[in-house]
Amino acid sequence: MTDTAKFKALAIDITTRVHGTLGASDGFIPLHEPEFLGEEEALVLDCIRTGWVSSVGPYVDRFEAEVSAACGTGHGVAVVNGTAALEVALRVVGVMPGDEVLMPSLTFIATANAAHHLGAVPHFVDAEARTLGLDPVALRAHLDRIADRRDGVTVNALTGRRLAAVVPMHVFGHPVDMDALAEVARDFDIALVEDAAESLGSRAGDRSCGSLGRVAALSFNGNKILTTGGGGAVVTDDPDLASRAKHLTTTAKVPHKWAFYHDEIGYNYRMPNLNAALGVAQLAQLGIRLTQKRALAQRYIDSFVGSEGVAVFVERPGTTANYWLNTLVLSPEMAAARDTVLDVLEAAGLMARPVWEPLHTLAIYADCPRADLPVTADLAARIVNVPSSAKLAGNRA
Amino acid sequence: MTDTAKFKALAIDITTRVHGTLGASDGFIPLHEPEFLGEEEALVLDCIRTGWVSSVGPYVDRFEAEVSAACGTGHGVAVVNGTAALEVALRVVGVMPGDEVLMPSLTFIATANAAHHLGAVPHFVDAEARTLGLDPVALRAHLDRIADRRDGVTVNALTGRRLAAVVPMHVFGHPVDMDALAEVARDFDIALVEDAAESLGSRAGDRSCGSLGRVAALSFNGNKILTTGGGGAVVTDDPDLASRAKHLTTTAKVPHKWAFYHDEIGYNYRMPNLNAALGVAQLAQLGIRLTQKRALAQRYIDSFVGSEGVAVFVERPGTTANYWLNTLVLSPEMAAARDTVLDVLEAAGLMARPVWEPLHTLAIYADCPRADLPVTADLAARIVNVPSSAKLAGNRA
Repeated sequence: MTDTAKFKALAIDITTRVHGTLGASDGFIPLHEPEFLGEEEALVLDCIRTGWVSSVGPYVDRFEAEVSAACGTGHGVAVVNGTAALEVALRVVGVMPGDEVLMPSLTFIATANAAHHLGAVPHFVDAEARTLGLDPVALRAHLDRIADRRDGVTVNALTGRRLAAVVPMHVFGHPVDMDALAEVARDFDIALVEDAAESLGSRAGDRSCGSLGRVAALSFNGNKILTTGGGGAVVTDDPDLASRAKHLTTTAKVPHKWAFYHDEIGYNYRMPNLNAALGVAQLAQLGIRLTQKRALAQRYIDSFVGSEGVAVFVERPGTTANYWLNTLVLSPEMAAARDTVLDVLEAAGLMARPVWEPLHTLAIYADCPRADLPVTADLAARIVNVPSSAKLAGNRA
Repeated sequence: MTDTAKFKALAIDITTRVHGTLGASDGFIPLHEPEFLGEEEALVLDCIRTGWVSSVGPYVDRFEAEVSAACGTGHGVAVVNGTAALEVALRVVGVMPGDEVLMPSLTFIATANAAHHLGAVPHFVDAEARTLGLDPVALRAHLDRIADRRDGVTVNALTGRRLAAVVPMHVFGHPVDMDALAEVARDFDIALVEDAAESLGSRAGDRSCGSLGRVAALSFNGNKILTTGGGGAVVTDDPDLASRAKHLTTTAKVPHKWAFYHDEIGYNYRMPNLNAALGVAQLAQLGIRLTQKRALAQRYIDSFVGSEGVAVFVERPGTTANYWLNTLVLSPEMAAARDTVLDVLEAAGLMARPVWEPLHTLAIYADCPRADLPVTADLAARIVNVPSSAKLAGNRA
């Protein structure tokens, strides 16, 4: 067979298996749709009827309490979106303009943008095929080469800039090897901040994503496992970090009976009560949603038994993934088939997506410092995400 | 009478007149409450029932069309809040990190924060008592002293930084003298950006606030004349500025059938469809709301006829104010009575607020460049805002 014929055969096989997973469908199946099966309507109407739709309100308080409970952290701060959450998380651990923030290149643009908006510089480190996330071995080897200790802070010897934080991201809901990363971060005295935007409900052992670093950022965008329309949260066990995050995200206004004093340059990053109401209703469904999504993932795994040239990415032993997006990984010799696979899936009414362009390959971040990124480049060429809405678990023909 | 007795007498007189304006009330009267009299519930439920709650959706498109129509501009871009709107407005007119942005000191913290978040430096200019906003005469005199033309750009000769934009803000909905400011901006080749956060529905002649500069920022926070819970908009007649604002606020992702290319460092500043639905319902009530608010303002004006030591701030001839917040201005000799007035109003169940601390007096912005600010300091000591919700117009005993 020619390569073209092989790629086409693989694409057709994958499409058949995805169809087999999802069952019959009338129309186009999106990658990820939200689901509103609880009190969403009632709570949102309550906001409108009581007039509490905006930046303070009882649902903001409840959402903050319930999102932190869901993550097993002591505190939560509701914000407008995941990017804002990560920017604030970085700021409260002390990232300053001109610092560098270590992060994967294989992540959504928001991870780098959050650092940039703080005036910091993304610094890309390789991923590992085992987790799709930041590789602790590669991180340590890179830091051994470039990190230097000056005046009590860890700097990048090549740029002279402080290495202020490291931000692993749990790709598609698969937890990184946080224990190993924490050891590296500790050894080099670099703050560990968790980008948990995709991993609400995922666990490493019995610890939830969001509770694995000093502070974490969550996203409740419409494509996530739960949604507030648009929204995010900062979660942490540290009461000081939490109260600083709350202060910064509410324009850093100092409590006073009437005067407008602001003691830091803060943000207008408050989540409106209207969106928090949706979030409270959604959080009550996290358990059901995880069950559905894990059932759907198991169905994908079953459907791809015996497949050649492609494998379903399965949770690492010792972790529990929320399987936010189900992920197919093409074998190395089939990497060049990716676009054919995407085309054939889409033509069959199955929305499919590659992983993000690695951030170091975008012109806007091409000049950022980076480690060698061979695994990132390799994985980026071979990943295909397939329809993953929780409701698809109940949609089998 | 001692000063204390005079202040107390004034405070009691003001409180009596405010009570007379608003009529009998059972409880505490807030400064500004939203009102939901239209299709809010139906449109928000439609979002939940169709699943379109997040960052794309038909209500975002409708809100953008209708907000620009309300402002008499060709284009609108819905964003998460007014601060984000102003940051983006500044960026699309070319403000760069290290530039200076001329603005009033007598404004909400967001005006300065928006510039700061871009990496620019606020540069404060005085207000005028006639409008409460930026004084074109003081601006010209200040620029005559400090502005220099170097390599085709206007710079602050004292700092060497480019003077990239001037941002008047229509305080409490009272239009600044935009024609005169536009002339100064043109003469010095500085972009004119309108902070219209408080002035939706206000007009200068027959032109709406939001359409008076190259681009404007609006706010739909819960305390504004209309609300989306939290939200803002960029409005402009310039299609290129509008499309760049849309691109930047949606992570600067380049359209592609599936790939994640981003060609600028953008923002996650999208207004969720859920909030836009609320906004669409609210915008349909703008006419009614303006009528109510202007009726309430007239009632304040009537109630304060013959008052001594205090005056209601009235719209300037040739302008139509939305009277977002009704504003009392104490006479200069009564400036020291302000806190007594605030205390007595609050004790009587009438929420009252001073104007913002002038931004140049906050430690966080104390080192910014500035002109002399005598009128700012004077006005800041004498302003008291009183309850202004539209519904109070129909609440007379």
